[in-house]
Amino acid sequence: MNHTIEAIADGSVTTPRGYKAAGMAAGIKKSGALDLGLLVSQVRCPAAAVFTTNVLKGASLLISQEHLSDGHAQAVIVNSGNANACTGERGLLDAREITRVLSRKLNIPAQDVLPSSTGVIGEYLPLPKLREAIEPLTAQLQDGNGGQLMARAIMTTDTKPKYTARKVTVAGSTFSLGGIAKGAGMIHPNMATMLVFLTTDARLSTKSLQAFLKQAVDQSFNRFTVDGDTSCDDTVLLMANGLASGMEIVPSEGLLSTAFKEALNSLCLDLTYQLARDGEGVSKVVKIVVKGAKSNEDSLKVARCIAVSPLVKTAIHAGDPNWGRIINAAGYSGAFFDPMSTDLWIGDVKIMERGERSSFEESDAVNVMQQNEYEITLDLHQGRGEDFYITTDLSHAYIDINADYRNRT
Amino acid sequence: MNHTIEAIADGSVTTPRGYKAAGMAAGIKKSGALDLGLLVSQVRCPAAAVFTTNVLKGASLLISQEHLSDGHAQAVIVNSGNANACTGERGLLDAREITRVLSRKLNIPAQDVLPSSTGVIGEYLPLPKLREAIEPLTAQLQDGNGGQLMARAIMTTDTKPKYTARKVTVAGSTFSLGGIAKGAGMIHPNMATMLVFLTTDARLSTKSLQAFLKQAVDQSFNRFTVDGDTSCDDTVLLMANGLASGMEIVPSEGLLSTAFKEALNSLCLDLTYQLARDGEGVSKVVKIVVKGAKSNEDSLKVARCIAVSPLVKTAIHAGDPNWGRIINAAGYSGAFFDPMSTDLWIGDVKIMERGERSSFEESDAVNVMQQNEYEITLDLHQGRGEDFYITTDLSHAYIDINADYRNRT
Repeated sequence: MNHTIEAIADGSVTTPRGYKAAGMAAGIKKSGALDLGLLVSQVRCPAAAVFTTNVLKGASLLISQEHLSDGHAQAVIVNSGNANACTGERGLLDAREITRVLSRKLNIPAQDVLPSSTGVIGEYLPLPKLREAIEPLTAQLQDGNGGQLMARAIMTTDTKPKYTARKVTVAGSTFSLGGIAKGAGMIHPNMATMLVFLTTDARLSTKSLQAFLKQAVDQSFNRFTVDGDTSCDDTVLLMANGLASGMEIVPSEGLLSTAFKEALNSLCLDLTYQLARDGEGVSKVVKIVVKGAKSNEDSLKVARCIAVSPLVKTAIHAGDPNWGRIINAAGYSGAFFDPMSTDLWIGDVKIMERGERSSFEESDAVNVMQQNEYEITLDLHQGRGEDFYITTDLSHAYIDINADYRNRT
Repeated sequence: MNHTIEAIADGSVTTPRGYKAAGMAAGIKKSGALDLGLLVSQVRCPAAAVFTTNVLKGASLLISQEHLSDGHAQAVIVNSGNANACTGERGLLDAREITRVLSRKLNIPAQDVLPSSTGVIGEYLPLPKLREAIEPLTAQLQDGNGGQLMARAIMTTDTKPKYTARKVTVAGSTFSLGGIAKGAGMIHPNMATMLVFLTTDARLSTKSLQAFLKQAVDQSFNRFTVDGDTSCDDTVLLMANGLASGMEIVPSEGLLSTAFKEALNSLCLDLTYQLARDGEGVSKVVKIVVKGAKSNEDSLKVARCIAVSPLVKTAIHAGDPNWGRIINAAGYSGAFFDPMSTDLWIGDVKIMERGERSSFEESDAVNVMQQNEYEITLDLHQGRGEDFYITTDLSHAYIDINADYRNRT
């Protein structure tokens, strides 16, 4: 091992050098909770992002895409409580106005400010409140706890802020990566509005960042909220200000690249699990592993089909090893396999062998399902394909939260 | 109008001439409820069916497919409480044995008996109980109420039996169609085990039946439980014993064909609504209509995406016109459209016009959503494609039912 990666549990976007952040209550949320966050790098950075593929795109997101078209950014301003989506021309003008006011205050080009919004769809942003907030918000910018405050300010139905960081030592140099995230409606990945902001003080080009980010997202957030099934505001952004002053990192087989990739993947998977654990009404997080498929794609199809099945999710909630639901969901995934040659485990309890119930003790399976986190594994015995998907239980709390969403935020 | 179609609300599979049915408690269900049903035609019939496309297929269903390969049947035996799925070779032998015992009793070839099973996956059928039940079951065969008793015997988490019939008068002759159905887990169409048995005394070939049945299913059950997303036992079966002694009906532009098609479609849509209303935990049934898409396929994609969204379903449950969730679900359907040119109605209240909130009274939309059945309409203004999907609300009762399924049946 030629590199070390240290997890910093209370780290965040302000752990890497040269980033400050803030979070405040600007009065967008009825509750008076923090609802406006700001992240600023000391210098203009290469930046890369993965945005929603929903044809409905929030106005703030559209402006961010436009501003990021040059591959650089220096500041991110995020409000919660209002998605600024389905707001037409006015929504676009509002998002532009916020970036303009902020850019003047920070004395940077508006093009380098990325706006982001999450919350209720179809209402206009309270622009006067946001304008007024810029002054106190920028005054509160800080490293240290700034990232954690921002993590609080971007929450909607989240019950706790999500943040973490990684410190990497490799070949004598050190750099850091940090991140914050928010989720909502996480029980069913289709509808989550997920925002993830990542920073690093390592030096990378926009193109390298995009490549590293894409593979990291595919192994983490996209195994929880699928590409093409995302809400109108989903965003994962990675900024790299290069202030750690090491060598430039490019995707390769080399030491630096391996260390950066490993740290970024670990950061993203950590945040994914934080999102999953704090999903609406969630009490269980289960990793669905499918191996032995004809291809990795088939494995993913089967894993995803099991993961999104409400019947599987209610069985997980109840801690009921009703494994017929698991194999049934696998069966309609679109992947071909022979159920008669399929094995199934809940934790390390073998439930099904070659398509039939194996001789297990029901109580052993129930014991596994009482844990907060465990794995369900399917072996199709058709080939070498393998993939996974992270799911959660479906509970009464989910319905309470979502039947009353607009009064709560 | 050269034909009349009369709906017979208390009619069923025994309304058409020459069919008898029965339902009894054979001890498969712990509760002691009816769990074994039988339908017998006086004569061997042309018959057609639409079966699940799940790669996991129940053993009883596999035997039914085999027996129906000659396009004919005379009897259907259905148990609830046990799906006879994931039961390997033994499951196949069990299903064969039941048809053999029944065929001897009825003195017809085993090939003309179709077995069907619904219930918990992964347990073997209690064969001795079923063998013993054949004698009393056949003794109870009757027209009149027989179909209704069978409708009760095939229920799982259904709270009420589903049946209806149509009497058709056309060009001086009369014939009837009747049906019974059961559903479960109807909140999320993916997982329903749906059984539908249809009879008619009209005269049709197997090929004609298949054509009529396919188009009827596409306009009813497949707008509620999608092709390719069905459980391991889903079956819609149509038998035609020809005892009404009219002319043979073939798919055409003619009067007889039009009347038969209309009556069959109406029968299937009626049963679909009965399934929807009795879906697990359902208090609302909502028809999602999407028009103005580039193609009918695009309309269906959008309608289905809205219909299966848990966030839309919880909003329907709460009676909350949180229309952002509707347009957001439309946006990730995979169909391309411009959200900025889209209109949305809840009932007759126009909620969104050209992508922005229209000036409606929230209370008007709330009033619509307090009805038990209403429509949500989306006009994409992109073309002439139109289609629909029937959905239901997602409630606490769904979770109660499904978290405790195996103890309840």
